[in-house]
Amino acid sequence: MRKVIKGGIVITMDEKKLEKFEKLDIVIEDDVIKELTVNYQGDADVIIDATNKVVMPGLINCHTHLGMSLFRATNDELTLNEWLNKKIWPIEANMTDEDVYYATLFSILEMLESGTTCSNNMYFSSEVAINAVIQTKVRSVFSECLMDNDDKGQDRIEIFKKLYEKYKDNDLISFMVAPHSMYTCSKKYLKECSDLALSYNVPVHIHFCENDEEVKTIKKQYNMDPVKALNKVGLLRNKLILAHGTNISDKGLKILNKKNISICHNPISNLNLGCGIADIDKYNNTLNICLGTDGQGSGNNMNMFYHMSVVDLLQKGIHKNPLSMNSYDVLKIATINGAYALGLEKEIGSIEIGKKADIIIVDINTINSYPSNDIINNIVHNTETINIDTVMINGNILIQNHKLMLNLNKEALKEKIKEMEARLMK
Amino acid sequence: MRKVIKGGIVITMDEKKLEKFEKLDIVIEDDVIKELTVNYQGDADVIIDATNKVVMPGLINCHTHLGMSLFRATNDELTLNEWLNKKIWPIEANMTDEDVYYATLFSILEMLESGTTCSNNMYFSSEVAINAVIQTKVRSVFSECLMDNDDKGQDRIEIFKKLYEKYKDNDLISFMVAPHSMYTCSKKYLKECSDLALSYNVPVHIHFCENDEEVKTIKKQYNMDPVKALNKVGLLRNKLILAHGTNISDKGLKILNKKNISICHNPISNLNLGCGIADIDKYNNTLNICLGTDGQGSGNNMNMFYHMSVVDLLQKGIHKNPLSMNSYDVLKIATINGAYALGLEKEIGSIEIGKKADIIIVDINTINSYPSNDIINNIVHNTETINIDTVMINGNILIQNHKLMLNLNKEALKEKIKEMEARLMK
Repeated sequence: MRKVIKGGIVITMDEKKLEKFEKLDIVIEDDVIKELTVNYQGDADVIIDATNKVVMPGLINCHTHLGMSLFRATNDELTLNEWLNKKIWPIEANMTDEDVYYATLFSILEMLESGTTCSNNMYFSSEVAINAVIQTKVRSVFSECLMDNDDKGQDRIEIFKKLYEKYKDNDLISFMVAPHSMYTCSKKYLKECSDLALSYNVPVHIHFCENDEEVKTIKKQYNMDPVKALNKVGLLRNKLILAHGTNISDKGLKILNKKNISICHNPISNLNLGCGIADIDKYNNTLNICLGTDGQGSGNNMNMFYHMSVVDLLQKGIHKNPLSMNSYDVLKIATINGAYALGLEKEIGSIEIGKKADIIIVDINTINSYPSNDIINNIVHNTETINIDTVMINGNILIQNHKLMLNLNKEALKEKIKEMEARLMK
Repeated sequence: MRKVIKGGIVITMDEKKLEKFEKLDIVIEDDVIKELTVNYQGDADVIIDATNKVVMPGLINCHTHLGMSLFRATNDELTLNEWLNKKIWPIEANMTDEDVYYATLFSILEMLESGTTCSNNMYFSSEVAINAVIQTKVRSVFSECLMDNDDKGQDRIEIFKKLYEKYKDNDLISFMVAPHSMYTCSKKYLKECSDLALSYNVPVHIHFCENDEEVKTIKKQYNMDPVKALNKVGLLRNKLILAHGTNISDKGLKILNKKNISICHNPISNLNLGCGIADIDKYNNTLNICLGTDGQGSGNNMNMFYHMSVVDLLQKGIHKNPLSMNSYDVLKIATINGAYALGLEKEIGSIEIGKKADIIIVDINTINSYPSNDIINNIVHNTETINIDTVMINGNILIQNHKLMLNLNKEALKEKIKEMEARLMK
């Protein structure tokens, strides 16, 4: 099946930093980008007209919990610890597999409608979440959340292993090993996670240095800087995604330097819960930076464009320096850097020949984003759901001309979520 | 003409902090709110069904430049001074009255589509901007931008006086005296502005302490703290809107304390241009805080909901304390506090009997804002253009069921803006 996206303003995000092409045609053969050309005249089964619209790689959300859609707008005036203890954990204890399935389906819909094509999901009940992903044909990385602060530590690892074996050859699904954090896992368990990830050759995904309290806890527990503690349990041998990292010390940063390590910045969640503001401008010189929305409960929503806008604003603001960040860097953080963090940089994150066709088309002609003098700056700051015209994942068109092409009943799904809200959120 | 908004979830923003009513009916007689009641059974010329939607006061944008819509996405990697000198001022010098008219019309459309019903506009060519306001039936406060760093200082004051006399009795238009800033006006001129505002009994609107460089400049010029300098030229006798105020000293704050003074917070603009972050949590105890988008050039867009979200996030983030701000306070800043700042608190800013019917209806049932456990928190953080269902100003329905009810050709207006972009932005 050959699809051609014709005449768009293409932002490739490729390594050569070619940035932007007017009227470039993209030829897609099944799931792969085959040709980038001007005025394509060959055959095509499907032609998508992108005239005057922006064509770009789908966004990559590197830290989220897809099953948490139910928790939107639950965090006001709560710290991270209050929110987890008062709201999240007691309610999660009552969630069934079916609840996680529908909550995940809802998050997938929210991501699609806002242009995200791949997410890195750390949660429990992964198998039902994987079912939601398979059903909707989106790309996702799974990491069953691992911890051993109760007696189920080994059960969780067994669940992960089983899922890994069952789905490892699925084209749209890949895996990470995800110890929840250093304060919910024992040293021995963290070492086991690290070994497991090395033996499966997958990266590790962990909450790390989310707030000052966590840093204190780790320092007390290990009697050393949290980064040194990471090293002690073996995790610096792994390809790593450190989620949050609001306050990594300069000493720690030097140790992380030049390693195979990504910081997944979650600015909205960190601001909402008073966790602080990661100095991305500083990290950027030594680490790969990617972007996460976290769950809706702390991150407000899954619209990566809203989160991107805040990334740019925050760095310019806290450094009182508009050169601390620019829109192109922010776009990298949300696309190719994310792909790199997930170990998928050869497959996704940019529009290049040979890569998978994970592509979105953004309409920049609505009142809220018009005129766009600097298209990249405009895209980063003024893209709402209303601007997402088309979403393609692995060559499949999932949203076309603003219309969901999946066999999914939005209203029925909302009713289901409403029922869960009434039952669980009392 | 009697209109009834029926069955909505009404957030009144009234002084008693009654916050939220399920299924309250609002009866509007011509331009005024006449009755708030449950299950209204009387006559009505128009019934608007707001079931399952949020009904709230229209938002009030207290610092903007409506003629600057052309400058969207022009600020990346520029400081305030670079941006003004390289981009804004050279282009503005070539703008005609007609350009300002269309640019203003565009901003009005953008505000309407995102739920803003009143704006405080500081720009030049005010008469054509007033024409755009009259044509579209929106509420606006005008302040012809006054400065005397060239030989036109007195001409500008004459323009203001003429416009004031001509439009002072218009129901939808009111005025402020707006010296641009302390660094573009002489002491004598500022004193004249202050006297003029007192004689007309209107507030003063001025850029103040936008960044560190401005503070240094004023300190050098006056040899005293900027707030003391305000006092010296007489401006502390006036009702004041200080736009920006990113860095008012503690000493200055003590002098401002308990006076009739509002800080208009413009967080997006301040972050974008590296001007710093106003400590609203600190100011909040002593001053009235309202909200502005600034122009699109530095503020990205006119969607006050996006700006509100950042207000909440920033204060929680910079103080590492989720109690620094809450969503209800943010909503106050964007509604009733704005009305107070403009001297219009008896007319707008809340849904109360006797006030003007400036009301918006927000659909909270789209995927991006569902479910809404805490409606006020959800509204503040997850409202996009797509959620704005109805906009009423002075009892007139300007947007209904997402449809613009004005005789205004959006596509023709965009074409006009495009032509201006091609001509002016080279």
